[in-house]
Amino acid sequence: MPNETMPNFINKRAFLTPDRTAVYFQEKTYSFKELYDRSLKVAGQLQALGLQQDQYVGVLLKNHLDTVVILFALQLLGVKAVILNNRLTPAELAWQLNDSKASFLVLEEAFEKMELEQLSRVKTITTERLFQVEPVEPAIIDEISLSDICTIMYTSGTTGNPKGVMQTYGNHWWSSVGSALNLGQMESDCWLCSVPLFHISGFSILMRSVIYGMPIVLHDHFDVERTITDIQEKKVTIMSVVGTMLTGIVEALNDRRLPDQFRCMLLGGGPAALPLLQACVEKEIPVFQTYGMTESSSQIVTLSPEYSLAKLGSAGKTLFPAQLKIVLDNGCPAKAGEAGEIAVKGANVTQGYLYRPEATKEKFRDGWFYTGDIGYMDEEGFLYVIDRRSDLIISGGENIYPAEIEAVLLAHPSVADAGVTRIDDLKWGQVPAAFIVKREDITKDELQQFCHTHLAKYKVPKAFYFVEKLPRNAAKKLLRRELREWVADNENRLN
Amino acid sequence: MPNETMPNFINKRAFLTPDRTAVYFQEKTYSFKELYDRSLKVAGQLQALGLQQDQYVGVLLKNHLDTVVILFALQLLGVKAVILNNRLTPAELAWQLNDSKASFLVLEEAFEKMELEQLSRVKTITTERLFQVEPVEPAIIDEISLSDICTIMYTSGTTGNPKGVMQTYGNHWWSSVGSALNLGQMESDCWLCSVPLFHISGFSILMRSVIYGMPIVLHDHFDVERTITDIQEKKVTIMSVVGTMLTGIVEALNDRRLPDQFRCMLLGGGPAALPLLQACVEKEIPVFQTYGMTESSSQIVTLSPEYSLAKLGSAGKTLFPAQLKIVLDNGCPAKAGEAGEIAVKGANVTQGYLYRPEATKEKFRDGWFYTGDIGYMDEEGFLYVIDRRSDLIISGGENIYPAEIEAVLLAHPSVADAGVTRIDDLKWGQVPAAFIVKREDITKDELQQFCHTHLAKYKVPKAFYFVEKLPRNAAKKLLRRELREWVADNENRLN
Repeated sequence: MPNETMPNFINKRAFLTPDRTAVYFQEKTYSFKELYDRSLKVAGQLQALGLQQDQYVGVLLKNHLDTVVILFALQLLGVKAVILNNRLTPAELAWQLNDSKASFLVLEEAFEKMELEQLSRVKTITTERLFQVEPVEPAIIDEISLSDICTIMYTSGTTGNPKGVMQTYGNHWWSSVGSALNLGQMESDCWLCSVPLFHISGFSILMRSVIYGMPIVLHDHFDVERTITDIQEKKVTIMSVVGTMLTGIVEALNDRRLPDQFRCMLLGGGPAALPLLQACVEKEIPVFQTYGMTESSSQIVTLSPEYSLAKLGSAGKTLFPAQLKIVLDNGCPAKAGEAGEIAVKGANVTQGYLYRPEATKEKFRDGWFYTGDIGYMDEEGFLYVIDRRSDLIISGGENIYPAEIEAVLLAHPSVADAGVTRIDDLKWGQVPAAFIVKREDITKDELQQFCHTHLAKYKVPKAFYFVEKLPRNAAKKLLRRELREWVADNENRLN
Repeated sequence: MPNETMPNFINKRAFLTPDRTAVYFQEKTYSFKELYDRSLKVAGQLQALGLQQDQYVGVLLKNHLDTVVILFALQLLGVKAVILNNRLTPAELAWQLNDSKASFLVLEEAFEKMELEQLSRVKTITTERLFQVEPVEPAIIDEISLSDICTIMYTSGTTGNPKGVMQTYGNHWWSSVGSALNLGQMESDCWLCSVPLFHISGFSILMRSVIYGMPIVLHDHFDVERTITDIQEKKVTIMSVVGTMLTGIVEALNDRRLPDQFRCMLLGGGPAALPLLQACVEKEIPVFQTYGMTESSSQIVTLSPEYSLAKLGSAGKTLFPAQLKIVLDNGCPAKAGEAGEIAVKGANVTQGYLYRPEATKEKFRDGWFYTGDIGYMDEEGFLYVIDRRSDLIISGGENIYPAEIEAVLLAHPSVADAGVTRIDDLKWGQVPAAFIVKREDITKDELQQFCHTHLAKYKVPKAFYFVEKLPRNAAKKLLRRELREWVADNENRLN
């Protein structure tokens, strides 16, 4: 099928525009040719270790030039990258490595002390050691199929167990193209990436760099002053942020303004607060609200330039190649203004979850992916996201699934029942809070400590409430919406 | 398969950016919403006439707003447009209508006198009458499949009989996207279209307009002063030209310069002469040489901005989504600098010829389309097209196939044998010339007159040479390369 294959993205970009800048990292500049040469060498080193096309390989890395090189090397070899969130606990990481049947793990020195090789029994190599391996001639894949898996990123869900989202080359390609057709794409563009490369928000910037031939400014973490300086000095035109980052930028800017060439502040990771958006209008920061998820390989809805003011608070319209509809509880399509579940469709949307046909089947109907998020479309078709899926907690851009925390809490012998919901937080937007029915006596501190040993830090509940009974329906399903009302009640009582 | 469907392009564009300008035509401006509303009405009128999804419908129209509306209306209905070259003779048109099994023909009043309904027995309606039909509620296709046929354009070939090139929505989509990734695509873009909409060069501009949300300036024919004025007044940034048009612009500009916002003169339709390219460098006209064909839904190779000077004369590198290789006569891949046949692959390349599985099979090997054109790639991968397929004549951007003219000449009772080749022409680049072996006495004028009744004007040979015998190989195959040497000899003798 000629329309399903494409040249290997990494090859092709180095061939087309070898001398263009690809990455600015730590005051150094790397061209697409330099990046390609490094990736080619690392591909030879990975192959010397026995890595082969179509294997799954875990990567546990921070935002760094080496990470870009390793991710590109894997693409050159046709190896599927299981991109791990480096904020997770060793137990969580080991689980994902085993679940994905990864044959290898490449990690940074900093993460070696987690002893993942022992935990997961997956063969492990640090980047330092990898870069010392004698390379062999790598078997580079010249042509890819758009239906080939490029990356796996884990998301949790209502079931508690994380699921590996399969992201194909086609998913990334269509996502990049959809974004370009909406935002425009020009030779002077430069995208600042300080969101994690292990999230689709960061990884998609890397793919756009390759597909557009566009330089990125890569930061190892978000630093507001460095951001403002680099936007000026590196002539950054676009940046991806979540609410907490944007708040930081707005505050730090004070009376300063971003330079004229800066044309797009792409705001994702959950609904933004109106006061923040209004502050951005005042400071002339061109905010483009977006809506997307790991399953849609980043943005699927973005507010077009001409509507950024008139439709403040909307996530915009669906990108050209994709489709979106609002579905009522009874399965019927919603009318304009009527809220329902957001369903999406498009070549940027995942084909499903790795080794999880049942979970995949649950989320798809007639080719549409049911997001679980709630929203409505106005008369003109602009999407307003009212609420991420009722159980989802978005904390500083990280997705947290209550079921996962509940499973940990229920594993404690003193806990008879547990329910987790979100509470608002000035800094992080939202943080998790737990409702506990005690079996035996236990303190909040003890529970928090217990969670720390099993969960990434950002997932540990910031508040614990002891209650007699949790709200469950006839089928014993936990009613988390009610928990949120309890939180509101509790806060009123406490304040 | 979720990655094979997309929203109907016409619908989606009107939905996304209804108020943006879509077309400037004859001093009027039409937004995407206005264009959509008109197309919707015409879709209702076409449906009232009985047109249904998946039918083939001929269109014989000039560059006009009505043409855009009709072509969009057909896309809304999922009707496949057989786009006819309005320079053809009635017999040629009738042949294509019947070959495509068109169930209908929409034509302009001006073409009514050709009596195509009688000739082809295909039901015919003029645009004037169409626009007076009482519309019904049209059955609009909300979702298209990228593998659905959108348009058919006929090209001739070595066999003489024209073949219908099947262009799918996917072909047009990938062509548009590949072009955008190479040239960039920004909100300020505006593309001037004075090449025919019935050629892929013009039609592809229309598709880009819809896919990018970009205005086009549509001219009914190429007029050099109107071109220069409109580039200035409508802030045109890109224009598609063939050599003869560009020569006209360069001459007319004289000491004037095109405005700064004008960023791309896309030069297709055959190899350009070096003196013309050099004149453009002097006049600061940003020429992007391209190489493409009906079968690749326009450009597949374009010279990137950064190389437009250093690689003068090259057609550039293959667009990001596509692939190209040079194949030697023995089937082996050519080395850098070595000339051979150009083969291309990509989702912009046609799946083949309508109802012609054998002809399709001949041109495709392992998913690669063999163009018949001759070229080489330099060490850096830049393509140099030495020669379009040896038998092809490109006259003012129109492709002319000698076999078709030979078939007409051979039908004349006084002609025993005929061979057609090209001669250089200052105005048109190339024109056809015929070598005739006489059976009975006949003059050049009589032969030219005979051709005029059977062939479009631009296909009629401009020179006739009477010879004793034509160069044919053992298998009696005409050796057109030798004919070209004869032409050179003849010119030397004549000059």
